[in-house]
Amino acid sequence: MATPSTAGRPTPERIFNALNAYQQTAALRAAIELDVFTAIGAGANTAAALAAKTGASEKGVRILCDYLTIQGFLTKEHGRYALTQESAIFLDRKSPACVGSMAGFLGTERARSIFDSLTLAVRNGGSVWSEGDNTKPNDEFWVAFARSMAPLTVPSSEFIAKLLRAEEGKTTKVLDIAAGHGMYGISVARKNPKAEVVALDWPAVLQVALENARKFGVADRYSVREGSAFETELGSGYDYVLLTNIFHHFDVPTCEKLMRRVYGALKPGGKAITLEFVPNEDRVSLIMLANTDSGDAYTLAEYEKMFRNAGFASLSLHPVPEMPQQVMVSEKSA
Amino acid sequence: MATPSTAGRPTPERIFNALNAYQQTAALRAAIELDVFTAIGAGANTAAALAAKTGASEKGVRILCDYLTIQGFLTKEHGRYALTQESAIFLDRKSPACVGSMAGFLGTERARSIFDSLTLAVRNGGSVWSEGDNTKPNDEFWVAFARSMAPLTVPSSEFIAKLLRAEEGKTTKVLDIAAGHGMYGISVARKNPKAEVVALDWPAVLQVALENARKFGVADRYSVREGSAFETELGSGYDYVLLTNIFHHFDVPTCEKLMRRVYGALKPGGKAITLEFVPNEDRVSLIMLANTDSGDAYTLAEYEKMFRNAGFASLSLHPVPEMPQQVMVSEKSA
Repeated sequence: MATPSTAGRPTPERIFNALNAYQQTAALRAAIELDVFTAIGAGANTAAALAAKTGASEKGVRILCDYLTIQGFLTKEHGRYALTQESAIFLDRKSPACVGSMAGFLGTERARSIFDSLTLAVRNGGSVWSEGDNTKPNDEFWVAFARSMAPLTVPSSEFIAKLLRAEEGKTTKVLDIAAGHGMYGISVARKNPKAEVVALDWPAVLQVALENARKFGVADRYSVREGSAFETELGSGYDYVLLTNIFHHFDVPTCEKLMRRVYGALKPGGKAITLEFVPNEDRVSLIMLANTDSGDAYTLAEYEKMFRNAGFASLSLHPVPEMPQQVMVSEKSA
Repeated sequence: MATPSTAGRPTPERIFNALNAYQQTAALRAAIELDVFTAIGAGANTAAALAAKTGASEKGVRILCDYLTIQGFLTKEHGRYALTQESAIFLDRKSPACVGSMAGFLGTERARSIFDSLTLAVRNGGSVWSEGDNTKPNDEFWVAFARSMAPLTVPSSEFIAKLLRAEEGKTTKVLDIAAGHGMYGISVARKNPKAEVVALDWPAVLQVALENARKFGVADRYSVREGSAFETELGSGYDYVLLTNIFHHFDVPTCEKLMRRVYGALKPGGKAITLEFVPNEDRVSLIMLANTDSGDAYTLAEYEKMFRNAGFASLSLHPVPEMPQQVMVSEKSA
């Protein structure tokens, strides 16, 4: 994230860059919106060709692409732009791994406006955003999340499917709590034709999960439960309960309450599968401070204590390869 | 600015970071606003001590400082924060080189809101901001600039004073066009007790320049001309005309028009001193696209042509040490 200070006399360059960092967000969003990466991938590699293809002004598209070149998202030689390997894989809409949809959630005006009051959030120790209580539905926000962020889950959802030995094809009952786009449960169901998945979330969000279940051909083994993870009847006898990126939204008593409900819903020997960013001593959950009333990034020691209080005797940690996330597996005693 | 891609399989991490880069701006602004760096410099180095000193919540200030640690603006060991060398020099208000005032201009809500319509600016090839015409006064914007950005000019204004051999103490008449905070002309006057400076800018902005002239003890050799650099009578017989960070705001014909007026105002053998970021083949003036109707970052070849059209036969280039800026010196034939 931060570039190391250049050698020699200290300069305020990095401070200057950080105060202007919002421009990086604006530039990448503009390029995704104008579909510049797809156009370059299709061979429109000069400012003139890009202007013709995207309907933007030649001067405008040149300045934007030069900035993206400096930022490392494009290369430029003899007036011709080219995609970097990263941009070709993740920003060209023709690539199956394209994550351009993330711009529908990350760095949106709504996301940015929440950070406008960061100073106040630091004073308060929690969000000043009126919708920061994540025990309540917040359809617009979470539907945007579900629609935009699915591509980013590929590495971690495949890793979880592997951890659950989905490819062995045993009869398996999975509960996906706060399923969102549903990709974690769907990934298990795709790998294991005998897996049945129950997804829990707010009604509007579940529509996105159901769309994805149909899209990936697992809708016949996919059912939903509408409502709050803290109040809705969860069902019982699950082999696995998936808790992906949920605990960081809540304070400790709320996390423990949820984990006790999970313990009750698992069959003996069943496992709670938690995906989180688990920091070491130093925590980095700025977004949680700005976005939520009471969330935080908990350390492994804190998770161990919360899960123990909820009935789980042990916890094993599994880092997701090449992603800054960890999976924690907690087994209910048989 | 951009961190190089990590080795191994490509990941969307840098894309993710760029879409969230606006958070770097928000975090640094919040820390400056809460005066966290000054508090740490004064010994409040735990979250609890910082909370007491800044009036923020302990949780809030811990999360903010942990994020700043990740970004490289602080260090943290055993729960105690410390300033980096850079932060101690440039962000502790007790340091004479503090640039914290830049947060009064860079990354402000106003600055950010202009980038909200970057996609449109790329389509248009120029700002959609109603105040993007820099031939008109725009008091609020330029007064904020003048008040906030003076600290950043120290290296380049000292370099210009040296180029002008101010320390030789010859009688010198200097015109500072679009003077802003006035620091370029003031720096010459401080080094040369026989220098007389005339500053030109919009009336409200000149108040800031006059304040600075008084502050640095050169007010008796400092006079002002109010109005547009394109219309106001400039006077004549100048040894030097300073044109610092002005051309990038305008299109080529407007730049040439200004430079012709400068040529007329110089005495024979006098010099036009231009400070700019002069890019090579690749240009990076995204901020000009978002902010101005018709500005750009011109290359050296373009400046040579514009200045030649305005009457200057030659141009010499002098990079400012350790800054990404260049000074161009153009002499009027004797």
